[in-house]
Amino acid sequence: MLKIDDIRSGNQLAGARLIRLIENNEPSAIELLKLLYPLAGNAFMIGITGSPGVGKSTLIDVLILEFRKLDKKIAVIAVDPTSPFTGGAILGDRLRMQRHATDKSVFIRSMASRGQTGGLSRATKDTAIVLDVMGFEIIIIETVGAGQAQFDVAGLAHSVGIVCIPSSGDGIQAVKAGILETGNLFIVNKSDLPDAQASFHDLSAMLEMKQSSKTGWQPRVLKTVATNGTGVKEVAQTFLSHLDAMKKDGSFDAKQRELERFYFHTLLKDFAFEKINLFINKSPDIKHALTDIELQKEDPISAAQNVINKLCRFNN
Amino acid sequence: MLKIDDIRSGNQLAGARLIRLIENNEPSAIELLKLLYPLAGNAFMIGITGSPGVGKSTLIDVLILEFRKLDKKIAVIAVDPTSPFTGGAILGDRLRMQRHATDKSVFIRSMASRGQTGGLSRATKDTAIVLDVMGFEIIIIETVGAGQAQFDVAGLAHSVGIVCIPSSGDGIQAVKAGILETGNLFIVNKSDLPDAQASFHDLSAMLEMKQSSKTGWQPRVLKTVATNGTGVKEVAQTFLSHLDAMKKDGSFDAKQRELERFYFHTLLKDFAFEKINLFINKSPDIKHALTDIELQKEDPISAAQNVINKLCRFNN
Repeated sequence: MLKIDDIRSGNQLAGARLIRLIENNEPSAIELLKLLYPLAGNAFMIGITGSPGVGKSTLIDVLILEFRKLDKKIAVIAVDPTSPFTGGAILGDRLRMQRHATDKSVFIRSMASRGQTGGLSRATKDTAIVLDVMGFEIIIIETVGAGQAQFDVAGLAHSVGIVCIPSSGDGIQAVKAGILETGNLFIVNKSDLPDAQASFHDLSAMLEMKQSSKTGWQPRVLKTVATNGTGVKEVAQTFLSHLDAMKKDGSFDAKQRELERFYFHTLLKDFAFEKINLFINKSPDIKHALTDIELQKEDPISAAQNVINKLCRFNN
Repeated sequence: MLKIDDIRSGNQLAGARLIRLIENNEPSAIELLKLLYPLAGNAFMIGITGSPGVGKSTLIDVLILEFRKLDKKIAVIAVDPTSPFTGGAILGDRLRMQRHATDKSVFIRSMASRGQTGGLSRATKDTAIVLDVMGFEIIIIETVGAGQAQFDVAGLAHSVGIVCIPSSGDGIQAVKAGILETGNLFIVNKSDLPDAQASFHDLSAMLEMKQSSKTGWQPRVLKTVATNGTGVKEVAQTFLSHLDAMKKDGSFDAKQRELERFYFHTLLKDFAFEKINLFINKSPDIKHALTDIELQKEDPISAAQNVINKLCRFNN
């Protein structure tokens, strides 16, 4: 039987077990989370995002070392399906990550997609609550892509770092496409490649244009070579500077409220799905309708409206 | 006033107007879609997916020409936020795409994220229905990434092409990470780069291993250089071969049922969200709860459960 105190004391075995229950969407995990929730809220949540191949995992690998030098307890939740943490990379990468395996102040966990819309975002937040209560002071969420409606890391993290690589298009292009607003820190990784300086200047210029009218934190652009550690110390320091700045100018509280609201909405969506799925699986009417819909004998739009009108009623 | 007949006759102005109404989630668009739905179901839906920078748009640009040579009416829906169609690319790309602007048998539309989970997938399918009724025989859906639960192009397309680039990791790594099952056709673009042959063989070997036990269509691997058109004719032919094969072995009907089921589930989720959002915005209880949640005075898990239990009731 899992106990709150085991999580509070930072027992890694207990933590790992609870996270597994969360992933399996066990009712007992939900009840435990309700009790853990009031104890959480101390961790600094960092989002690290970028296209596959830009070197996010390598960067995080070194970031862990930098935060450990500052004696921070650090956890990583990898949502990126191409991350070595989630089994998406070559053996060498995975072995390299193992160097943190004996450090009890480091916890690395991958989240597999549960195949449900909303489910992944909720499972990630649920897991972060567990890690927070376990005493991890920094929690990094690694994900592919930002600015996508479907998994919005900005709804889960206090500070977001966007990783790109120098190139005549790719990384910078992705940044252009509407994620400029999401990043608090931009990292031009593999900056020993040609075009690094140009990419750095492009990004800086774009950010300056965007930000000139705003007050508060100005997004920074940093250059790294994660494979040899160059510049990663500055990345760690800049994340911490961003946290300090938010706490000083009061924007941290506003951000925290935003994250709580995001979580609430995620939960609403997820619980509604569960209800709908239960309803679909139990109702013989709907099973019958589904057959007609599959054979294109019935218009699915009207059918779906009917189901939802039947299921969801306002009571106040 | 938009008329069904204007859509049926392929009037591009009417089509574009209806698609705009769909994007804005106008109730009148939903009513029109119900009437259009029984008239659709003739188009061959192709999904083209891959990481940013692999050259999807350039490939599609040439694919359009190849399908036009076969006298096919072709439409493109770009869901990829880094696509030039959606405004994510450099001016040169966008100008290049303009060459189809005077061809009335080509229709290109980008879908902006509506910021709702499920919303983008539904808007894409709704748009495809309009284009289908307008007489477009082939509809290409361009998207970043496959195998992600959130926007699953496999739920929208009869045939899925996954584009990657030769490299010592990146493209192939992304393919490894669980999207091998999704692709019916793998395209190694930029195959004039070093490592092209190795990437081609890696992919072919991986597919052979996966597929050896299956019957029916065996996924193909093709090499292209989209920028000069090399290999793109074969891509067009292979998509059409896949369609033929599915029609011959009966798997097309099964796939079609799968797509209808996916659409129905997408609609259920989307309509449920709308109900929930309406409920949240109208209910003073929930507004009040939200304030407490934002200030972490109330556990959002219990609060969300209460809302959904209040809103969703089984009636049969």
